[in-house]
Amino acid sequence: MAEKTNRTGLWIIGAWGGVATTALVGLLNLQKKLVQPVGLTTELPEFSDIEMPAWSEFVPAGYEIRDFSFEKAANELIEQRAMERSAVTPILKELAELDTRIFPGFLANSGKVVENMADRKREENLTPRETISAMQSDMKTFVAENQLSHLIVVNLMSTEPVCEYFSESEIEKLPEAEQIKRGREWNNWEAFRQLLDSSEKPPVPASTLYAVAALETGFDFVNFTPSLGATPPALEQLAKQTSARFFGNDGKTGETLMKSVLAPMFAHRNLRVMSWVGHNIFGNRDGVVLDDPHNKATKVTSKNHLLEQILGYAPQTLVTIEYIKSMGDWKTAWDHIHFQGFLGTPMTLQFTWQGCDSLLAAPLVLDLVRLTELARRRNFTGRMDFLASFFKSPIRVEEQSFVRQFEKLEDWLRDEKQFQN
Amino acid sequence: MAEKTNRTGLWIIGAWGGVATTALVGLLNLQKKLVQPVGLTTELPEFSDIEMPAWSEFVPAGYEIRDFSFEKAANELIEQRAMERSAVTPILKELAELDTRIFPGFLANSGKVVENMADRKREENLTPRETISAMQSDMKTFVAENQLSHLIVVNLMSTEPVCEYFSESEIEKLPEAEQIKRGREWNNWEAFRQLLDSSEKPPVPASTLYAVAALETGFDFVNFTPSLGATPPALEQLAKQTSARFFGNDGKTGETLMKSVLAPMFAHRNLRVMSWVGHNIFGNRDGVVLDDPHNKATKVTSKNHLLEQILGYAPQTLVTIEYIKSMGDWKTAWDHIHFQGFLGTPMTLQFTWQGCDSLLAAPLVLDLVRLTELARRRNFTGRMDFLASFFKSPIRVEEQSFVRQFEKLEDWLRDEKQFQN
Amino acid sequence: MAEKTNRTGLWIIGAWGGVATTALVGLLNLQKKLVQPVGLTTELPEFSDIEMPAWSEFVPAGYEIRDFSFEKAANELIEQRAMERSAVTPILKELAELDTRIFPGFLANSGKVVENMADRKREENLTPRETISAMQSDMKTFVAENQLSHLIVVNLMSTEPVCEYFSESEIEKLPEAEQIKRGREWNNWEAFRQLLDSSEKPPVPASTLYAVAALETGFDFVNFTPSLGATPPALEQLAKQTSARFFGNDGKTGETLMKSVLAPMFAHRNLRVMSWVGHNIFGNRDGVVLDDPHNKATKVTSKNHLLEQILGYAPQTLVTIEYIKSMGDWKTAWDHIHFQGFLGTPMTLQFTWQGCDSLLAAPLVLDLVRLTELARRRNFTGRMDFLASFFKSPIRVEEQSFVRQFEKLEDWLRDEKQFQN
Amino acid sequence: MAEKTNRTGLWIIGAWGGVATTALVGLLNLQKKLVQPVGLTTELPEFSDIEMPAWSEFVPAGYEIRDFSFEKAANELIEQRAMERSAVTPILKELAELDTRIFPGFLANSGKVVENMADRKREENLTPRETISAMQSDMKTFVAENQLSHLIVVNLMSTEPVCEYFSESEIEKLPEAEQIKRGREWNNWEAFRQLLDSSEKPPVPASTLYAVAALETGFDFVNFTPSLGATPPALEQLAKQTSARFFGNDGKTGETLMKSVLAPMFAHRNLRVMSWVGHNIFGNRDGVVLDDPHNKATKVTSKNHLLEQILGYAPQTLVTIEYIKSMGDWKTAWDHIHFQGFLGTPMTLQFTWQGCDSLLAAPLVLDLVRLTELARRRNFTGRMDFLASFFKSPIRVEEQSFVRQFEKLEDWLRDEKQFQN
Repeated sequence: MAEKTNRTGLWIIGAWGGVATTALVGLLNLQKKLVQPVGLTTELPEFSDIEMPAWSEFVPAGYEIRDFSFEKAANELIEQRAMERSAVTPILKELAELDTRIFPGFLANSGKVVENMADRKREENLTPRETISAMQSDMKTFVAENQLSHLIVVNLMSTEPVCEYFSESEIEKLPEAEQIKRGREWNNWEAFRQLLDSSEKPPVPASTLYAVAALETGFDFVNFTPSLGATPPALEQLAKQTSARFFGNDGKTGETLMKSVLAPMFAHRNLRVMSWVGHNIFGNRDGVVLDDPHNKATKVTSKNHLLEQILGYAPQTLVTIEYIKSMGDWKTAWDHIHFQGFLGTPMTLQFTWQGCDSLLAAPLVLDLVRLTELARRRNFTGRMDFLASFFKSPIRVEEQSFVRQFEKLEDWLRDEKQFQN
Repeated sequence: MAEKTNRTGLWIIGAWGGVATTALVGLLNLQKKLVQPVGLTTELPEFSDIEMPAWSEFVPAGYEIRDFSFEKAANELIEQRAMERSAVTPILKELAELDTRIFPGFLANSGKVVENMADRKREENLTPRETISAMQSDMKTFVAENQLSHLIVVNLMSTEPVCEYFSESEIEKLPEAEQIKRGREWNNWEAFRQLLDSSEKPPVPASTLYAVAALETGFDFVNFTPSLGATPPALEQLAKQTSARFFGNDGKTGETLMKSVLAPMFAHRNLRVMSWVGHNIFGNRDGVVLDDPHNKATKVTSKNHLLEQILGYAPQTLVTIEYIKSMGDWKTAWDHIHFQGFLGTPMTLQFTWQGCDSLLAAPLVLDLVRLTELARRRNFTGRMDFLASFFKSPIRVEEQSFVRQFEKLEDWLRDEKQFQN
Repeated sequence: MAEKTNRTGLWIIGAWGGVATTALVGLLNLQKKLVQPVGLTTELPEFSDIEMPAWSEFVPAGYEIRDFSFEKAANELIEQRAMERSAVTPILKELAELDTRIFPGFLANSGKVVENMADRKREENLTPRETISAMQSDMKTFVAENQLSHLIVVNLMSTEPVCEYFSESEIEKLPEAEQIKRGREWNNWEAFRQLLDSSEKPPVPASTLYAVAALETGFDFVNFTPSLGATPPALEQLAKQTSARFFGNDGKTGETLMKSVLAPMFAHRNLRVMSWVGHNIFGNRDGVVLDDPHNKATKVTSKNHLLEQILGYAPQTLVTIEYIKSMGDWKTAWDHIHFQGFLGTPMTLQFTWQGCDSLLAAPLVLDLVRLTELARRRNFTGRMDFLASFFKSPIRVEEQSFVRQFEKLEDWLRDEKQFQN
Repeated sequence: MAEKTNRTGLWIIGAWGGVATTALVGLLNLQKKLVQPVGLTTELPEFSDIEMPAWSEFVPAGYEIRDFSFEKAANELIEQRAMERSAVTPILKELAELDTRIFPGFLANSGKVVENMADRKREENLTPRETISAMQSDMKTFVAENQLSHLIVVNLMSTEPVCEYFSESEIEKLPEAEQIKRGREWNNWEAFRQLLDSSEKPPVPASTLYAVAALETGFDFVNFTPSLGATPPALEQLAKQTSARFFGNDGKTGETLMKSVLAPMFAHRNLRVMSWVGHNIFGNRDGVVLDDPHNKATKVTSKNHLLEQILGYAPQTLVTIEYIKSMGDWKTAWDHIHFQGFLGTPMTLQFTWQGCDSLLAAPLVLDLVRLTELARRRNFTGRMDFLASFFKSPIRVEEQSFVRQFEKLEDWLRDEKQFQN
């Protein structure tokens, strides 16, 4: 067997989607030095003295359930005026080659809409363990064939329907039957492993199966969606055992990013937010999936909770996400914030955010992969709290103020001694 | 002479203006516990364990150049739907009593528009020193008659025309004559004192004369306007000598507050701001003054510079402030931020801020006075950097990110050892 | 019996609601000449030569299902900053007197939310005919006791759940049972009358019962809500027989008014509207009712259909109406219009409308009553098409362009010969 | 000499500018049936039965003062995301051929900024008459060489500085000297002709010289800019004499179009507009010219006056047009309309218009040319009032409501008898 290299695999779930395609178009352009590194946190001048993994060290592959190709996906984005053709033309050959490394994906409790989209799914009546084993086989083969030193799995699938698990303290309040289903077992790796190995087919969503597949092998898992993924504490225990890394959930790109910078302003100034209404419209494939109320619920929850955490009280909130075909990848959010000022006078802040969803998300994906690899090289293992600024719902992180989250990243990058949590 | 009490004088310049009137209406309501402390940073739950000076310990007085009264000023704000009548009715008697402590103010290089407003100004052909002495006499008499332990002077006058002074490093580039006028002397208290004492009537603006009058006596000076005030280093030397405190400039209430929370988002995410346009409309007395291009220039500069400081580069910017009579005290700002995302795609953020100018400013004034008094009780002297989050142009403070400025305030409030700069 | 006067009764259904209260506060102020006639079409300078019925000629009364009073209703509006106290104080006595003429109202197929609000409803297990007779008795008594020459009934109740009736051409497609329920009978007065007289309690909504009660007696009926009211052709036949007048539906006050002026712009310029999204938030009692999906459906339909009528094709549309408590009577609408320009380039128009719902609606109510009375004096009978500009869904009127609808009103006011339709 | 054809010349002044380039790219695409006719009024389904001149009947040529080409101009628009490359690639050959018919243009009182842009201007020290003769020679040669039956001159030059002429009634108030310069002579063709023929070089702007050159020859003149052009009554007399046609001024594309549909809504509803503020930002070449205050004044006047005409009173208004480079051809307008509702309550409408300037203007240019040619075929001569809906400042037309202006166009298109004014 050939000697290990410094090359790291990047295994994307949902590889021909808009975010994944943009991330890989971006990666190829960065590798060829054809674009300015706009939008990339890891390329900020203030971090130029930190030795980041090079863009050339990442080798992409992944899963996809639809029949498609990177060129087709890029063409959709170009038609929607999200991307310029000039970003794609010079890398068409590389994209076609990448297509050959995108394998049919797995579905499990992914919801009707997603299932209806699937053209090339894998066999379905497997137990969780059988599914995990098949995933691990794919990943290990890819690592071996490409002589990679490591693999980072990034979840960019469509949002799954809500799948609740409960923390230790909440379990006891549940009826016994519920405790078994998504209570006790999900908080303890040994118990959860047995659950996965049973033939009962418990309702573990695909995102969590992918997370287990990665972490059990010692590979890292980053969940860019609001799906469950590696959220249950059982998976944190697993990651520690195998010295792997994980984090999520739900990349913070537009409206919620705005909330996490604006809410601290109201909080620190003691301006009482009475209501915060946010309407989002967009027309890409994510929008089709989120049009199903089950999948939408997962997303809305993720966009909404941080206000109470930052403000310390719960104003009336409303978040809608609606599919408007003509918008394509351009997500437009209108937010109306009604707040009380001195002497009780009501005042208003409104904003309209007009951004390309995939182009806002893609650089975060690349930053996350790069920082995860950096964490590995720094021997950091487990839950990567310092990545909180990238996520709407950072796993078990209380701090929701964007600037304070970013300071944590700065601290981690600056201070080697703070490495391990 | 009676024993010193714990009572502190609050000497407001521009006392019958909208901000001052709102601040005092608020103070009286707070003293009588008739309002919720919305909008007051010092009343945040997180600071409830810190022993703040009580609202009842402040005794207001001040200067004003127009014939007016607190009741008339409050009625204007009520008509403009900025304030509820119910906030004023219970304190009408106290307001009338306060009117008797508002003395005719001084003008000096204040600009044509302001001069035209003056109904009851003091004699004018004085040298700077003569003016300062007259001010000091007023202030000391008030302190003595009311048995106050201290006095805090707060500048809430209309914005003055631009008055530039130059730092040490810039002076050498000036022609000799300029160096004398507003160069060398403004950087050294001894030299500046001689300049003030000369009979040449150098172009020192009223705000700076007020600052000298206060600091020389050991009283504190807070500049809530963009006027020069205590900005020249000479005054910092003076404050250190007399163990007084000072800070400014220009209360950060609306659009600029927004800039100081939004710009860090763009900076940290490496999203390149191409242009940032801000249009402000409002119709209060400030608006009349700012309609004069000389006075407006001072304001626009103060609203504009922080972007470059936060972003690290200078996008094209445009800031307008226009007087639209029907708006009254309701300042509406529309900002259009054009930024470049990943792969160069241009995106847009727009916001509309609809706030009452006086009601946003007034609680900051009360917070500043309270924190200045707290600083005195903690024996802090000189430049109060920890108040940077309250100002558009914090004197000689580099940090412009609101959250980071606020963290400095938290640190100062929490950590007694950080007291002195 | 005393001689008939020139005085006309104004019988309001939902009399202590926000719109009704504002309309009557306005009417009393107009009668006392205490307000400028802003917002009243009939007071436009261009119509000053037309002899309109005087405000003093109208005598109000009405129905209400909640325990309340005009003063309480006005106080709510004052607290929500919709109305100034100074508009109410001078007429408190008159309002209290008016309270005595507001009688307990009727419910019939009004939906759960409305039923839950009812504190003082009339007996319920009546047949339609029994209900109508009770209404007619109330109205006639009021007319007689006050020596009125006429009565105009205005429906300002909360929106009812959707109640579909079908036109002649649509009936034949219905199953037989449906045809009987809300098909054939609703298109023919004789048949509908028999339906009302039967003991079967067909699902005729209260708004239609009120309309029948009025029209059968020769009184006029104006439906300011999207409820069914006098829409079925059977009622037009009835109005013709009794020489009464009627029109509706759904006062056009804010977002939809905007649609009816903006859509013609896109249509005439051949700019292709791809999508039109409208989000409405507000917090008054209407909002509570519209939070019930059954009642909301009626409203959304009324706000939505006109786009297709004006544009000649159906763009994707989305209309939401959400109850946000803090907004009170201030309805804020954000509309996002995505359209295609020359060479296919997509462009965007957004607007934010911030208006007081009750204050926008109330003058329309007064205009409608005045114009209805004018129509009577001009011997016009039946369907008052010339009032189309006041309604979102003008009954059986094709024209939806606001300016063209307004021209029809001008024509009718100018040209006596066009009186009868 | 060959027989006259049905082909009409289209002579564009400012031919390589953004609007002209887009109009010609559009014309070529229409001729080849490569685009949908979106944005073209003359292609509305409702006018499909009217025999319009065919797109293939127009033969373009024109003037330009800068060294440039259609391909370069189109590339600028593509880079600014105003136009798709796919609209240009199929017609590159035709565009290059068109370049050969674009001749160096004339400058006369065009303002400093425009003069500084000129790379290839014609000799300058000519009298007005000499300039006119040179223009006429160019035009006639083109007509002859291409066997055209007619020529329509369209002014798409940059906006000129304000050039006032005075109407008959205003002249008498002027001092004698002023009367001569731009008073009496400009109201009478004979006198104006003599002024042009004199060697005194009176300050007649280029746009008016072009208009005279066209009309004197019997060619038509359409002024799409706010420059003076054919506005003086002298030119209307000339047009009548030569049986030519003319109209203008200033194509109504974005913010002002919005004003002309929204202001009638406020007027008809008697909602009192207190202030109307409009801020426009954009970054194309027009923006550079309008950054000069002299040229900007002409534009702002044209955008502003219609409000008073529609409302019947003058609210406070503010219009700014600012050059923001990053915006390119995307003109964004934010308008804030502050109005008074019933009982005096102030309310607000805001809109943001995001449109491509050139793409909004270009189809109007094509419509105007087509309708002008139609007018010729219908033997209409003189001032074409029925085109008012296309212009911000329709010459000597009072009606400013867009829908009513459009109805005039419909009437003219429908009713042959209304042909002549």
